[in-house]
Amino acid sequence: MTTLISDEEASPRVRAVFDDIRQTRKTDYVNNLWRAIAVHPPTLERTWERVKSIMGEPSAIDPLVKEMIYIAVSVTNNCEYCLATHGAAAASKGMTPEMMGELLAIIGLANETNRLAIGYRVPVDDKFK
Amino acid sequence: MTTLISDEEASPRVRAVFDDIRQTRKTDYVNNLWRAIAVHPPTLERTWERVKSIMGEPSAIDPLVKEMIYIAVSVTNNCEYCLATHGAAAASKGMTPEMMGELLAIIGLANETNRLAIGYRVPVDDKFK
Amino acid sequence: MTTLISDEEASPRVRAVFDDIRQTRKTDYVNNLWRAIAVHPPTLERTWERVKSIMGEPSAIDPLVKEMIYIAVSVTNNCEYCLATHGAAAASKGMTPEMMGELLAIIGLANETNRLAIGYRVPVDDKFK
Amino acid sequence: MTTLISDEEASPRVRAVFDDIRQTRKTDYVNNLWRAIAVHPPTLERTWERVKSIMGEPSAIDPLVKEMIYIAVSVTNNCEYCLATHGAAAASKGMTPEMMGELLAIIGLANETNRLAIGYRVPVDDKFK
Amino acid sequence: MTTLISDEEASPRVRAVFDDIRQTRKTDYVNNLWRAIAVHPPTLERTWERVKSIMGEPSAIDPLVKEMIYIAVSVTNNCEYCLATHGAAAASKGMTPEMMGELLAIIGLANETNRLAIGYRVPVDDKFK
Amino acid sequence: MTTLISDEEASPRVRAVFDDIRQTRKTDYVNNLWRAIAVHPPTLERTWERVKSIMGEPSAIDPLVKEMIYIAVSVTNNCEYCLATHGAAAASKGMTPEMMGELLAIIGLANETNRLAIGYRVPVDDKFK
Repeated sequence: MTTLISDEEASPRVRAVFDDIRQTRKTDYVNNLWRAIAVHPPTLERTWERVKSIMGEPSAIDPLVKEMIYIAVSVTNNCEYCLATHGAAAASKGMTPEMMGELLAIIGLANETNRLAIGYRVPVDDKFK
Repeated sequence: MTTLISDEEASPRVRAVFDDIRQTRKTDYVNNLWRAIAVHPPTLERTWERVKSIMGEPSAIDPLVKEMIYIAVSVTNNCEYCLATHGAAAASKGMTPEMMGELLAIIGLANETNRLAIGYRVPVDDKFK
Repeated sequence: MTTLISDEEASPRVRAVFDDIRQTRKTDYVNNLWRAIAVHPPTLERTWERVKSIMGEPSAIDPLVKEMIYIAVSVTNNCEYCLATHGAAAASKGMTPEMMGELLAIIGLANETNRLAIGYRVPVDDKFK
Repeated sequence: MTTLISDEEASPRVRAVFDDIRQTRKTDYVNNLWRAIAVHPPTLERTWERVKSIMGEPSAIDPLVKEMIYIAVSVTNNCEYCLATHGAAAASKGMTPEMMGELLAIIGLANETNRLAIGYRVPVDDKFK
Repeated sequence: MTTLISDEEASPRVRAVFDDIRQTRKTDYVNNLWRAIAVHPPTLERTWERVKSIMGEPSAIDPLVKEMIYIAVSVTNNCEYCLATHGAAAASKGMTPEMMGELLAIIGLANETNRLAIGYRVPVDDKFK
Repeated sequence: MTTLISDEEASPRVRAVFDDIRQTRKTDYVNNLWRAIAVHPPTLERTWERVKSIMGEPSAIDPLVKEMIYIAVSVTNNCEYCLATHGAAAASKGMTPEMMGELLAIIGLANETNRLAIGYRVPVDDKFK
């Protein structure tokens, strides 16, 4: 069974990350992913630091687009947990059901055409090398 | 070896798709993918019809974002051909090297955290079910 | 660089497998795969024994169908070597270009609909449980 | 949670596809996959049109073989929904438990040898280029 | 539904493998995997023979390390069953929670950097060719 | 084409990472991966920081074992670049051809049995839940 570290069980080091998650996301809720990886504090710290900075800080790519990219990877890898949480995150950032439908249509299309390109062993065109 | 159907070898049915690709994309160049799948005309027709409509028609998702989603799938599936062509398409639609760097950082992060969620067998939180 | 074991370098144990490959396949040619895995003789023996029996012996599934199943896996895994050799094997067993076109259309479709089922997190129907 | 569109909720456009599924498959039952992707009608229409034509129409590949190819992809991608429904479809088209056992043996073997070819970085033989 | 062959339903051929599993592993418990693949006795025999020899016999790689390699593959392929059983096997061979945390950190890192190498289409350095 | 940042083109920020790679690894050679991801300095810094710490610092898992885990992921993901470089790293840390042969046999076996568990939809045993 997966161990989920509660606030009570959390060491000060783990608790500091949980607190930062709460403050950064302006919510009291800490997702199961963080409670699971908290069994290995260096992984918790490194992962949170990168999620916070790559997904959360202002940058050239729009926050909702970042979630859509994340979902595209998670569908292709079949990660149900990731789909559930990032689907919710995308919705909270403005993804409509229409956009989710389009997103999955693109993901489906790309997974199909990827296999056509691979299966036909299509050589890269000189102009794209 | 992969057979690439030239304009001369193309049947009228195949030629009609090649012509539509040229007209739609406003270029004389037809990518190797289309020339390869042209050996099976129904696949050529169905694939082009969907690429044209899903990737090309105005919709709720921005054209450049569509290309980024496509790249996210192609990197995860390791499809070199798809990366080469859709990387070029994304650049032509305005993706800067800075955005490409960010895009790949997100794709890398998602592939990593997907495996953390899977490896720790993290149960989906009740609130995301 | 990959080490490919030549006939001269082959130990008697390896040579016995090479000889069985030649006799079973009625050809003097031993594919690079066998020459590569020959660096670890137990893997060579176990792999050949299973390929010979699963792919080669008469059974409930037709030999050409076996090759098509093998190709479906290899396209999905993006194994170029496997596609090159099993594509040739399928052709030698009667796969026409028309059938190859259909095969790839099915593989593409399945890779697409797999992602739709995953992305929409579709629950298994009670009747299929 | 996944939204499954009931007959009552279906728009005329969606209802037309549901009706065609029923008539084509000669059953009153519409699988959850169709009810899920019905939230995005263009995806429902395009996917059903292709499944109907690629999987359902008479062609060079036998209907049961098509299902086996579909299963090979679904096992490799770990799509449980797809396995459940296409396993049932294959059984209804005559796949015996013996054949299912063989099918999975081939899929297992191909996934193994794919990794040997990749791991040893085996170069494609000149004769298969 | 998956058929799990009980001891009572097992043919002598299947029973012989179950007995060997019990004796080799010094336990009366036979995992569901073996009971499932027992519907196809040749697959049961071949798979057990290889698991027994590759995973179980003394060799150049330590038994616990073998389990860690197995887990790395299973996480990457998202095989929940395999993670559950081989996670238990690794724990019984001495893997501490600290080591499991490190193992998953490495698996996550490798899945990330794999995509960076693929996404940037990094050419293999001459010295590693 | 992939851009590889030379020492001359490197900004001070990038140069600092290159210098740390050289010093940490006690070699003047900087792999193409680092030169490629250097186009996005934050990714270069974060990736190197984690590779250095996860793969390079003394910990509960042996350095050679870490490389074997990395290879297991890279074979399963079909990342040729990663195989080339980490294969070399493993060899430099003591992996013999015999061990490489065993490693690939385990990776092949795991990829096969993963698909048997998935294909037979084997339920997790109560004792492993």
